[in-house]
Amino acid sequence: MMSLWFDDLRAGDSFTSRGTTLTEGQIVQFAFQFDPQPFHMDAHAAARSQYGGIIASGLHTLSVACRLVQQDKPWGATAMGAPGMDDLRWLKPVRPGDTLHVVTQIKSLRPSASKPDRGIVQLYHAVYNQHDELVMDYAITELVARRDGDTPKQ
Amino acid sequence: MMSLWFDDLRAGDSFTSRGTTLTEGQIVQFAFQFDPQPFHMDAHAAARSQYGGIIASGLHTLSVACRLVQQDKPWGATAMGAPGMDDLRWLKPVRPGDTLHVVTQIKSLRPSASKPDRGIVQLYHAVYNQHDELVMDYAITELVARRDGDTPKQ
Repeated sequence: MMSLWFDDLRAGDSFTSRGTTLTEGQIVQFAFQFDPQPFHMDAHAAARSQYGGIIASGLHTLSVACRLVQQDKPWGATAMGAPGMDDLRWLKPVRPGDTLHVVTQIKSLRPSASKPDRGIVQLYHAVYNQHDELVMDYAITELVARRDGDTPKQ
Repeated sequence: MMSLWFDDLRAGDSFTSRGTTLTEGQIVQFAFQFDPQPFHMDAHAAARSQYGGIIASGLHTLSVACRLVQQDKPWGATAMGAPGMDDLRWLKPVRPGDTLHVVTQIKSLRPSASKPDRGIVQLYHAVYNQHDELVMDYAITELVARRDGDTPKQ
Protein backbone atom coordinates (compact mmCIF):
# COMPACT_ATOMS: atom_id res chain seq x y z
CA MET A 1 0.00 0.00 0.00
CA MET A 2 1.32 3.47 -0.97
CA SER A 3 1.52 5.39 2.26
CA LEU A 4 2.91 8.60 3.71
CA TRP A 5 4.66 8.70 7.08
CA PHE A 6 4.38 11.34 9.79
CA ASP A 7 7.57 12.91 8.44
CA ASP A 8 6.00 13.42 5.01
CA LEU A 9 3.03 15.45 6.32
CA ARG A 10 2.93 19.26 6.60
CA ALA A 11 0.54 21.60 8.39
CA GLY A 12 -1.84 23.01 5.80
CA ASP A 13 -1.82 19.88 3.62
CA SER A 14 -5.33 19.07 2.52
CA PHE A 15 -7.02 16.04 0.98
CA THR A 16 -10.43 15.73 -0.70
CA SER A 17 -12.20 12.37 -0.59
CA ARG A 18 -14.35 10.81 -3.24
CA GLY A 19 -18.12 11.06 -2.78
CA THR A 20 -20.74 8.56 -1.70
CA THR A 21 -24.54 8.68 -1.87
CA LEU A 22 -26.54 7.80 1.23
CA THR A 23 -29.63 5.83 0.34
CA GLU A 24 -32.81 5.61 2.41
CA GLY A 25 -32.09 1.91 2.97
CA GLN A 26 -28.65 2.60 4.43
CA ILE A 27 -29.95 5.41 6.63
CA VAL A 28 -32.81 3.30 8.04
CA GLN A 29 -30.57 0.26 8.56
CA PHE A 30 -27.90 2.22 10.47
CA ALA A 31 -30.52 3.95 12.63
CA PHE A 32 -32.37 0.71 13.37
CA GLN A 33 -29.11 -0.76 14.68
CA PHE A 34 -27.46 2.17 16.43
CA ASP A 35 -29.68 5.26 16.72
CA PRO A 36 -33.34 4.18 16.69
CA GLN A 37 -35.09 7.55 16.75
CA PRO A 38 -38.26 7.98 14.66
CA PHE A 39 -36.90 10.78 12.46
CA HIS A 40 -33.98 8.49 11.42
CA MET A 41 -35.90 5.32 10.59
CA ASP A 42 -39.69 5.77 10.33
CA ALA A 43 -40.59 7.53 7.08
CA HIS A 44 -44.12 8.31 8.22
CA ALA A 45 -43.22 9.63 11.68
CA ALA A 46 -40.31 11.56 10.12
CA ALA A 47 -42.67 13.22 7.62
CA ARG A 48 -44.68 14.60 10.55
CA SER A 49 -41.56 15.68 12.52
CA GLN A 50 -39.76 19.03 12.47
CA TYR A 51 -37.44 17.53 9.79
CA GLY A 52 -40.25 16.81 7.29
CA GLY A 53 -38.75 13.45 6.35
CA ILE A 54 -36.04 10.94 7.26
CA ILE A 55 -32.63 12.37 8.08
CA ALA A 56 -29.46 10.34 8.65
CA SER A 57 -28.24 9.69 12.18
CA GLY A 58 -25.32 12.02 12.90
CA LEU A 59 -23.29 8.94 13.80
CA HIS A 60 -24.05 7.49 10.39
CA THR A 61 -22.77 10.65 8.71
CA LEU A 62 -19.67 10.45 10.92
CA SER A 63 -19.10 6.77 10.13
CA VAL A 64 -19.46 7.37 6.39
CA ALA A 65 -17.02 10.29 6.63
CA CYS A 66 -14.55 8.03 8.43
CA ARG A 67 -14.83 5.46 5.66
CA LEU A 68 -14.32 8.05 2.92
CA VAL A 69 -11.21 9.35 4.67
CA GLN A 70 -9.81 5.88 5.41
CA GLN A 71 -10.36 4.87 1.81
CA ASP A 72 -8.25 7.64 0.37
CA LYS A 73 -5.98 8.93 3.07
CA PRO A 74 -2.38 8.68 2.01
CA TRP A 75 -1.06 7.64 5.42
CA GLY A 76 -3.38 4.63 5.47
CA ALA A 77 -0.80 1.96 6.31
CA THR A 78 1.02 4.08 8.89
CA ALA A 79 -2.00 5.11 11.03
CA MET A 80 -1.72 3.92 14.62
CA GLY A 81 -5.07 4.91 16.12
CA ALA A 82 -6.89 8.02 17.32
CA PRO A 83 -7.00 9.17 20.94
CA GLY A 84 -9.88 11.61 20.57
CA MET A 85 -12.27 13.84 18.69
CA ASP A 86 -13.41 17.41 19.45
CA ASP A 87 -15.81 20.12 18.40
CA LEU A 88 -18.10 17.93 16.32
CA ARG A 89 -21.05 19.88 14.90
CA TRP A 90 -24.02 18.57 12.93
CA LEU A 91 -24.89 21.67 10.91
CA LYS A 92 -27.44 20.56 8.32
CA PRO A 93 -29.63 17.46 7.95
CA VAL A 94 -28.40 14.70 5.61
CA ARG A 95 -31.30 13.22 3.63
CA PRO A 96 -31.71 10.11 1.47
CA GLY A 97 -30.06 10.71 -1.89
CA ASP A 98 -27.53 13.22 -0.58
CA THR A 99 -23.95 12.69 -1.74
CA LEU A 100 -21.22 13.46 0.78
CA HIS A 101 -17.52 14.09 0.48
CA VAL A 102 -14.91 15.05 3.05
CA VAL A 103 -12.17 17.68 2.97
CA THR A 104 -9.39 16.95 5.47
CA GLN A 105 -6.88 19.55 6.57
CA ILE A 106 -3.77 19.03 8.68
CA LYS A 107 -3.90 21.71 11.37
CA SER A 108 -0.73 20.82 13.28
CA LEU A 109 1.77 18.03 13.92
CA ARG A 110 4.28 17.16 16.60
CA PRO A 111 6.45 14.15 17.35
CA SER A 112 5.29 12.15 20.38
CA ALA A 113 7.32 13.11 23.44
CA SER A 114 7.11 9.61 24.96
CA LYS A 115 7.07 7.30 21.91
CA PRO A 116 9.70 7.95 19.23
CA ASP A 117 8.02 5.71 16.66
CA ARG A 118 5.04 8.05 16.11
CA GLY A 119 3.79 11.59 15.73
CA ILE A 120 0.56 13.27 16.75
CA VAL A 121 -1.45 14.87 13.95
CA GLN A 122 -4.38 17.25 14.50
CA LEU A 123 -6.84 17.05 11.62
CA TYR A 124 -9.93 19.05 10.71
CA HIS A 125 -12.58 17.22 8.71
CA ALA A 126 -15.34 19.09 6.88
CA VAL A 127 -18.17 17.08 5.31
CA TYR A 128 -20.06 18.63 2.40
CA ASN A 129 -23.17 17.59 0.46
CA GLN A 130 -23.71 17.79 -3.32
CA HIS A 131 -24.57 21.50 -3.01
CA ASP A 132 -21.22 22.14 -1.28
CA GLU A 133 -23.09 22.92 1.93
CA LEU A 134 -21.16 22.06 5.09
CA VAL A 135 -23.23 19.40 6.88
CA MET A 136 -20.80 18.34 9.64
CA ASP A 137 -17.33 19.20 10.85
CA TYR A 138 -15.00 17.96 13.58
CA ALA A 139 -11.42 17.82 14.76
CA ILE A 140 -9.67 14.51 15.32
CA THR A 141 -6.27 13.58 16.70
CA GLU A 142 -4.46 10.74 14.91
CA LEU A 143 -1.25 8.89 15.70
CA VAL A 144 0.86 8.37 12.57
CA ALA A 145 4.03 6.25 12.35
CA ARG A 146 7.41 7.95 11.80
CA ARG A 147 9.61 6.89 8.94
CA ASP A 148 12.67 6.77 11.22
CA GLY A 149 10.80 4.97 14.01
CA ASP A 150 10.18 1.25 14.17
CA THR A 151 8.23 0.00 11.19
CA PRO A 152 4.63 -0.39 12.35
CA LYS A 153 3.94 -4.07 12.83
CA GLN A 154 0.89 -4.20 10.56
CA MET B 1 -43.85 5.33 25.13
CA MET B 2 -43.11 6.49 28.69
CA SER B 3 -41.05 9.62 28.31
CA LEU B 4 -39.71 12.54 30.33
CA TRP B 5 -39.82 16.09 29.04
CA PHE B 6 -37.18 18.79 29.33
CA ASP B 7 -39.06 20.17 32.36
CA ASP B 8 -38.73 16.83 34.19
CA LEU B 9 -34.92 16.72 33.96
CA ARG B 10 -32.52 18.09 36.60
CA ALA B 11 -28.77 18.77 36.51
CA GLY B 12 -27.07 15.89 38.28
CA ASP B 13 -29.63 13.28 37.21
CA SER B 14 -27.85 10.15 36.05
CA PHE B 15 -28.91 7.03 34.13
CA THR B 16 -27.13 3.70 33.74
CA SER B 17 -27.76 1.66 30.58
CA ARG B 18 -27.98 -2.07 30.25
CA GLY B 19 -24.88 -3.86 28.92
CA THR B 20 -24.04 -5.37 25.56
CA THR B 21 -21.22 -7.70 24.49
CA LEU B 22 -19.23 -6.82 21.38
CA THR B 23 -18.40 -9.94 19.39
CA GLU B 24 -15.49 -10.32 16.97
CA GLY B 25 -18.02 -10.67 14.14
CA GLN B 26 -19.67 -7.35 14.94
CA ILE B 27 -16.33 -5.58 15.33
CA VAL B 28 -14.99 -6.87 11.99
CA GLN B 29 -18.25 -6.13 10.19
CA PHE B 30 -18.44 -2.53 11.42
CA ALA B 31 -14.77 -1.91 10.59
CA PHE B 32 -15.05 -3.47 7.13
CA GLN B 33 -17.89 -1.06 6.35
CA PHE B 34 -16.82 2.16 8.07
CA ASP B 35 -13.26 2.05 9.47
CA PRO B 36 -11.21 -0.46 7.48
CA GLN B 37 -7.93 -0.38 9.38
CA PRO B 38 -6.02 -3.66 9.85
CA PHE B 39 -6.14 -3.61 13.65
CA HIS B 40 -9.96 -3.39 13.53
CA MET B 41 -10.68 -6.15 11.00
CA ASP B 42 -7.71 -8.42 10.21
CA ALA B 43 -7.09 -10.80 13.12
CA HIS B 44 -3.64 -11.79 11.86
CA ALA B 45 -2.39 -8.27 11.13
CA ALA B 46 -3.92 -7.10 14.44
CA ALA B 47 -2.02 -9.83 16.35
CA ARG B 48 1.24 -8.38 15.00
CA SER B 49 0.20 -4.75 15.72
CA GLN B 50 0.82 -2.65 18.83
CA TYR B 51 -2.63 -3.77 20.05
CA GLY B 52 -1.83 -7.51 20.03
CA GLY B 53 -5.21 -8.39 18.55
CA ILE B 54 -8.37 -6.92 17.06
CA ILE B 55 -9.79 -3.86 18.78
CA ALA B 56 -13.13 -2.21 18.00
CA SER B 57 -13.25 0.92 15.89
CA GLY B 58 -13.79 3.89 18.17
CA LEU B 59 -16.80 4.79 16.02
CA HIS B 60 -18.22 1.34 16.67
CA THR B 61 -17.88 1.85 20.42
CA LEU B 62 -19.54 5.26 20.02
CA SER B 63 -22.38 3.83 17.92
CA VAL B 64 -23.01 1.02 20.42
CA ALA B 65 -23.02 3.55 23.27
CA CYS B 66 -25.58 5.63 21.36
CA ARG B 67 -27.81 2.57 20.96
CA LEU B 68 -27.55 1.67 24.65
CA VAL B 69 -28.51 5.21 25.63
CA GLN B 70 -31.35 5.47 23.09
CA GLN B 71 -32.71 2.14 24.24
CA ASP B 72 -33.12 3.19 27.84
CA LYS B 73 -33.16 6.94 27.99
CA PRO B 74 -36.32 8.17 29.58
CA TRP B 75 -36.79 11.18 27.31
CA GLY B 76 -36.82 8.91 24.26
CA ALA B 77 -40.00 10.20 22.64
CA THR B 78 -39.23 13.86 23.34
CA ALA B 79 -35.70 14.00 21.85
CA MET B 80 -35.41 16.46 18.97
CA GLY B 81 -31.86 15.93 17.73
CA ALA B 82 -28.30 16.73 18.75
CA PRO B 83 -26.35 19.74 17.48
CA GLY B 84 -22.90 18.55 18.56
CA MET B 85 -20.45 16.44 20.50
CA ASP B 86 -17.28 17.49 22.34
CA ASP B 87 -14.23 16.17 24.19
CA LEU B 88 -14.54 12.57 23.00
CA ARG B 89 -11.68 10.41 24.28
CA TRP B 90 -10.90 6.79 23.48
CA LEU B 91 -9.11 5.74 26.65
CA LYS B 92 -8.76 1.96 26.48
CA PRO B 93 -9.06 -0.58 23.65
CA VAL B 94 -12.36 -2.48 23.37
CA ARG B 95 -11.76 -6.11 22.44
CA PRO B 96 -14.00 -8.96 21.24
CA GLY B 97 -15.97 -10.31 24.19
CA ASP B 98 -15.94 -7.04 26.14
CA THR B 99 -19.28 -5.98 27.60
CA LEU B 100 -20.01 -2.26 27.60
CA HIS B 101 -22.46 -0.10 29.48
CA VAL B 102 -22.98 3.66 29.59
CA VAL B 103 -23.49 6.03 32.48
CA THR B 104 -25.14 9.29 31.43
CA GLN B 105 -25.12 12.41 33.58
CA ILE B 106 -27.02 15.64 33.00
CA LYS B 107 -24.45 18.43 33.38
CA SER B 108 -26.68 21.42 32.67
CA LEU B 109 -29.93 22.46 31.04
CA ARG B 110 -31.42 25.65 29.69
CA PRO B 111 -34.54 26.54 27.72
CA SER B 112 -33.85 27.47 24.11
CA ALA B 113 -33.79 31.26 23.72
CA SER B 114 -35.18 31.15 20.17
CA LYS B 115 -37.52 28.13 20.21
CA PRO B 116 -39.98 27.90 23.11
CA ASP B 117 -40.90 24.25 22.36
CA ARG B 118 -37.51 22.85 23.43
CA GLY B 119 -34.63 22.96 25.88
CA ILE B 120 -30.91 22.36 25.46
CA VAL B 121 -29.41 19.60 27.60
CA GLN B 122 -25.67 19.05 28.09
CA LEU B 123 -24.92 15.39 28.78
CA TYR B 124 -21.77 13.56 29.79
CA HIS B 125 -21.54 9.91 28.70
CA ALA B 126 -19.02 7.53 30.24
CA VAL B 127 -18.63 4.06 28.69
CA TYR B 128 -17.29 1.27 30.91
CA ASN B 129 -16.25 -2.33 30.22
CA GLN B 130 -16.98 -5.40 32.37
CA HIS B 131 -14.05 -4.50 34.67
CA ASP B 132 -15.57 -1.05 35.26
CA GLU B 133 -12.69 0.51 33.36
CA LEU B 134 -13.57 3.73 31.53
CA VAL B 135 -13.01 3.00 27.84
CA MET B 136 -14.50 6.14 26.27
CA ASP B 137 -16.17 9.35 27.35
CA TYR B 138 -17.71 12.36 25.63
CA ALA B 139 -20.05 15.29 26.03
CA ILE B 140 -23.10 15.69 23.83
CA THR B 141 -25.71 18.41 23.44
CA GLU B 142 -29.30 17.25 22.97
CA LEU B 143 -32.51 19.12 22.19
CA VAL B 144 -35.40 17.86 24.34
CA ALA B 145 -39.06 18.90 23.94
CA ARG B 146 -40.73 21.01 26.65
CA ARG B 147 -43.93 19.83 28.27
CA ASP B 148 -45.51 23.27 27.90
CA GLY B 149 -44.27 23.72 24.33
CA ASP B 150 -45.94 22.29 21.27
CA THR B 151 -46.23 18.54 21.36
CA PRO B 152 -43.41 17.18 19.19
CA LYS B 153 -44.92 15.93 15.95
CA GLN B 154 -43.46 12.44 16.21
